Amino acid sequence: MPAHIPGFRFSVTCAGIKGTRRPDMVLMVSDPPARWSGTFTTNQVKAAPVILGMERLKKGAPLSAILVNSGNANACNGERGMADALTLCRETSRLLGVPEEQVVMASTGVIGQPLPTEKMAAVLPALVDGLGQASLEEVAAAIMTTDRYPKWEEVTLDSYPHVKIGGVVKGAGMIHPRMATMLGFFFMNAGLSVEVLQTLTRQSVELSFNRITVDGDQSTNDTVLVLDNGTDAASEGLKKAVEEELRTMMKSLAFKIVDNGEGVTKVVTLRVEGAASEEDARQVAESVGRSPLVKTAFFGEDPNWGRIMAAIGYSGAVIDPERIDIAFDNVALVRGGRWAGEAAEREVTQIMKRRDYTLTISLNHGEAAYRLVTSDFSVEYVKINADYRS
Amino acid sequence: MPAHIPGFRFSVTCAGIKGTRRPDMVLMVSDPPARWSGTFTTNQVKAAPVILGMERLKKGAPLSAILVNSGNANACNGERGMADALTLCRETSRLLGVPEEQVVMASTGVIGQPLPTEKMAAVLPALVDGLGQASLEEVAAAIMTTDRYPKWEEVTLDSYPHVKIGGVVKGAGMIHPRMATMLGFFFMNAGLSVEVLQTLTRQSVELSFNRITVDGDQSTNDTVLVLDNGTDAASEGLKKAVEEELRTMMKSLAFKIVDNGEGVTKVVTLRVEGAASEEDARQVAESVGRSPLVKTAFFGEDPNWGRIMAAIGYSGAVIDPERIDIAFDNVALVRGGRWAGEAAEREVTQIMKRRDYTLTISLNHGEAAYRLVTSDFSVEYVKINADYRS
Repeated sequence: MPAHIPGFRFSVTCAGIKGTRRPDMVLMVSDPPARWSGTFTTNQVKAAPVILGMERLKKGAPLSAILVNSGNANACNGERGMADALTLCRETSRLLGVPEEQVVMASTGVIGQPLPTEKMAAVLPALVDGLGQASLEEVAAAIMTTDRYPKWEEVTLDSYPHVKIGGVVKGAGMIHPRMATMLGFFFMNAGLSVEVLQTLTRQSVELSFNRITVDGDQSTNDTVLVLDNGTDAASEGLKKAVEEELRTMMKSLAFKIVDNGEGVTKVVTLRVEGAASEEDARQVAESVGRSPLVKTAFFGEDPNWGRIMAAIGYSGAVIDPERIDIAFDNVALVRGGRWAGEAAEREVTQIMKRRDYTLTISLNHGEAAYRLVTSDFSVEYVKINADYRS
Repeated sequence: MPAHIPGFRFSVTCAGIKGTRRPDMVLMVSDPPARWSGTFTTNQVKAAPVILGMERLKKGAPLSAILVNSGNANACNGERGMADALTLCRETSRLLGVPEEQVVMASTGVIGQPLPTEKMAAVLPALVDGLGQASLEEVAAAIMTTDRYPKWEEVTLDSYPHVKIGGVVKGAGMIHPRMATMLGFFFMNAGLSVEVLQTLTRQSVELSFNRITVDGDQSTNDTVLVLDNGTDAASEGLKKAVEEELRTMMKSLAFKIVDNGEGVTKVVTLRVEGAASEEDARQVAESVGRSPLVKTAFFGEDPNWGRIMAAIGYSGAVIDPERIDIAFDNVALVRGGRWAGEAAEREVTQIMKRRDYTLTISLNHGEAAYRLVTSDFSVEYVKINADYRS
């Protein structure tokens, strides 16, 4: 069943970028051209398509098409990388009959190997011919690298049933060697202005994809684009509704990115409360959520609160150890910096056997809070990531 | 064979803190009392003995004795933790007939469980009786938690044969649940002033124990103490000789801390060169040396330079991706931000099969450098750290 967000058409095909027969190229087209906004990796080592996308977003032309490939990140390829991205965008624009600056690219996969540009260019006509045939699920599957399942959502706004929002993402982390990218594409026909889209995208990404961590590594290719091709200007009520729906969708897909990683056996939502500032809350969440000792304890289902206390202590946030409370779901394991006893520990041990749970750290030092979704470090994680180029 | 640094005597015994029969308590005595200096964990969650040690160092009395236990960190125990540490120091001072403020304690082991103070006090007379019988190797063994081998060194200065320096350390990281501490004790009879000792300790620790990383977690108990009981003021030449010898000893023991961790299969010396500032060089080294994706690639013996480039790119340092060179030992794998080719990769793959090697990152952006010794993340590492309290 093809996707049905008005004005958007999708197509997938296999160019054999990695020598397999699974779909590895996607074309996403908006007609009319869409207003768009985006967030890109802050890594100083940026893949060629990221640099090109940032440039074209800045220039302000609307967006007609996004060409995506998996299997090759087109990063660290020097001038040739940019030339290849430009060639493929130009050829796509020619086939679609749209201006070249209305086409961007996104790539994910191996770093430092040139794109097989001829192979990829050869399938562009088939991609254009197939437009309108692919569902969001097929699109989500084609952009995967080692993701375990396709991640996508599609909703119709309750109070504005003519407005639809769709989104597809692929995961960051838990990835095979030389692959590590978060890509996200969101499509709607709401009629938001570019300015509203930009603010909305930045804020929603901050509360979703920027609040997940698997291994703390940030890729050279991370990209989230939001497209809106609605022709009637959105009312204030519609803006609000889109804002809420997009944020919910991004949070849900962000959770799935952590959940779906190969090697993940636990998905832990960290809630830090009572911090003196949001920055302090963030520091505590990232320190705990990235600690290998804490993450191996999650894997081992070990209520190892000493490691959590230590990670809070070195986070850099202002804390008072003797005011800290730590709870797993609704069970307090630490109160005022001290162990709550055997009975609590037994209950927490049971909670830690679940696939997902919430770990709440109350600093009792102020009013600020922060939420971060993290995973465990499993034996499988190491095996997957140690595998030589597969 | 007892240790023979003039004026120092050591003793070990088993108090059965964790219910085993291996030595878990150490007494280190200096007669005459020593001038001393120290560095302590910067973690805001500090174990009681760390707080006590910092206070007594600040007060400036000389040091007669250090009481050390393994098996229990005496951290996160509230007021009782400090009361227990004070009781044991007081009892030790009484038995030795020295002022109470001339005794400090260091603990390592489980967090959040009260010290078995009675059991420990009961063996103090035996510890005092045994003074002078233990070698540095026996001392190093008694302070281990899950370290694989005792780490100690003892040297006589070539040009000043009456001066001896000895040191013992235990490891940080790669540790069983609720244990994670680096302890180091250094003894000499060189006759340095307290001021010189302080500067020397700070600088030497900065270049050794502060430049190793296993899992990036910082414990609540980390402590390094340096004692000097020499009665004749050191000459400038002797000062220089001690400075060099102590730094060499600390670097060597720091390398062993990384090497000796359970679960470590690779010890990688990261050299970052050509940075715009030392801070930039440090950021790059820590970003690469702590990246789980890089560390699993070390374990997998995978010359995965894309992950290294990505970790450099998100380090926060000022870099130009197209100027970066990366070499394993003497083989360049990346030149000017790009892959050096199949032949180089084959050579690097061979180098990565070694237990230890050097990874050099040249930013070609300035003159500053930084060195960090790191390890891999192995399957064994996860298994050890996921084990429920053993």
